Amino acid sequence: MMRVKLIVAYDGTAYHGWQLQKNGNTIEAELNKHLSALLEEDIQVIGASRTDAGVHAHCNVAVFDTVTRMPAEKISYALNQRLPEDIRIQSSRRVADDFHPRKCKSIKTYEYRIWCGEFPMPTERLYSYFMYTPLRVEWMREAAAYLEGKHDFASFCSVDSQAESTVRTIYGIEILEEKNMVRIRISGNGFLYNMVRIIAGTLVEIGKGKYPPERIADILESCDRQKAGPTLPARGLTLVQYDFI
Amino acid sequence: MMRVKLIVAYDGTAYHGWQLQKNGNTIEAELNKHLSALLEEDIQVIGASRTDAGVHAHCNVAVFDTVTRMPAEKISYALNQRLPEDIRIQSSRRVADDFHPRKCKSIKTYEYRIWCGEFPMPTERLYSYFMYTPLRVEWMREAAAYLEGKHDFASFCSVDSQAESTVRTIYGIEILEEKNMVRIRISGNGFLYNMVRIIAGTLVEIGKGKYPPERIADILESCDRQKAGPTLPARGLTLVQYDFI
Repeated sequence: MMRVKLIVAYDGTAYHGWQLQKNGNTIEAELNKHLSALLEEDIQVIGASRTDAGVHAHCNVAVFDTVTRMPAEKISYALNQRLPEDIRIQSSRRVADDFHPRKCKSIKTYEYRIWCGEFPMPTERLYSYFMYTPLRVEWMREAAAYLEGKHDFASFCSVDSQAESTVRTIYGIEILEEKNMVRIRISGNGFLYNMVRIIAGTLVEIGKGKYPPERIADILESCDRQKAGPTLPARGLTLVQYDFI
Repeated sequence: MMRVKLIVAYDGTAYHGWQLQKNGNTIEAELNKHLSALLEEDIQVIGASRTDAGVHAHCNVAVFDTVTRMPAEKISYALNQRLPEDIRIQSSRRVADDFHPRKCKSIKTYEYRIWCGEFPMPTERLYSYFMYTPLRVEWMREAAAYLEGKHDFASFCSVDSQAESTVRTIYGIEILEEKNMVRIRISGNGFLYNMVRIIAGTLVEIGKGKYPPERIADILESCDRQKAGPTLPARGLTLVQYDFI
């Protein structure tokens, strides 16, 4: 028996998220199905980030156990032959038998992309959120600085979260602007349910001038979801980096 | 009567190209259908670049005549309400009654995108060509320099072209590399059938080291399509700029 770690990239557009569901196709279901067929065993992967419907990933992580004699690093090639074009394994490696991706310390980086312009750009529509109103990126950067560090992020968490604690650490938030595209990159040790999309929604309110950057300190302190901005749509969100530390 | 110029952006993935066809949906057909319904007249647009099936555009140009009393600059907003999500008008303006986009001098810029890596990246797959072999971009730049200027591009033209002359002027070729993505940007006064995709295919052969950069001068001089590289797939190609001069 060996444990294999996969790095999994996907376009989430056509999926009901990562996690197995009774109805609707998911990334986890695709991996289980094609791994089981390839290795002729019943394979059930354990995922690292259970991304929501419509969210994308360059590097989500999954592990599984197998008795195959196929070398671990060949599995990526064989599995990609079977997977649909919108899921591609980026690597497959043998790991320690007790490696569990959700029990290891990690740094995850998400990117939220916003296309600002008079009209949407079709070739960007699947991987960004369209906004008509221009954003003042310097206000967003000023606000983002208040969120860095260890805080109770209850204000930035959907009410149906089942997390035991709402304390998380954000290592950094970068806001990049290149022509019409604004990208919010957030690194942290873990994220609450919808946290990145709510932070993005709040930074957008600030970028539009709806309230001043320093207001985000009050929002954070209030621990009240109602005070923060809206949850932006899933299509703008991508898991772009995942490092175990 | 007024003549209106549209700037049209589209994701070409789902279309059989720009031009009207008996079978298969095209950008031109979508524009004619939705403009006719919006303005309650029989509208037939004239396109500037008749892009192939699967090719994308940020700024193709179409003109049409109408008797509507709707201000020309409002048509973009109204038409975008009706168009599918993969086509978006970027602007609509009144132009001179004799303005014809294919009879005006223009500078067109196409970009061909290549994703180089061990495996494809799903979120880039629709707008780039995947290559396993790494590319030496400095060789490609050296080769590209030979193509700049006024030349007979018969070697870089599909044999089923109906062009009267195969002489064109390339104003510049830039090759940009950023992480896994290599982008070939070509500006010119006009392009032969499949010319950008054949130039990209030839530069890729050189970037792989199949033949040296200076060989491209012989290929150009031979006026022989067989000497040049393959026609790369449509999905990697986007019309990114269109200026009338």
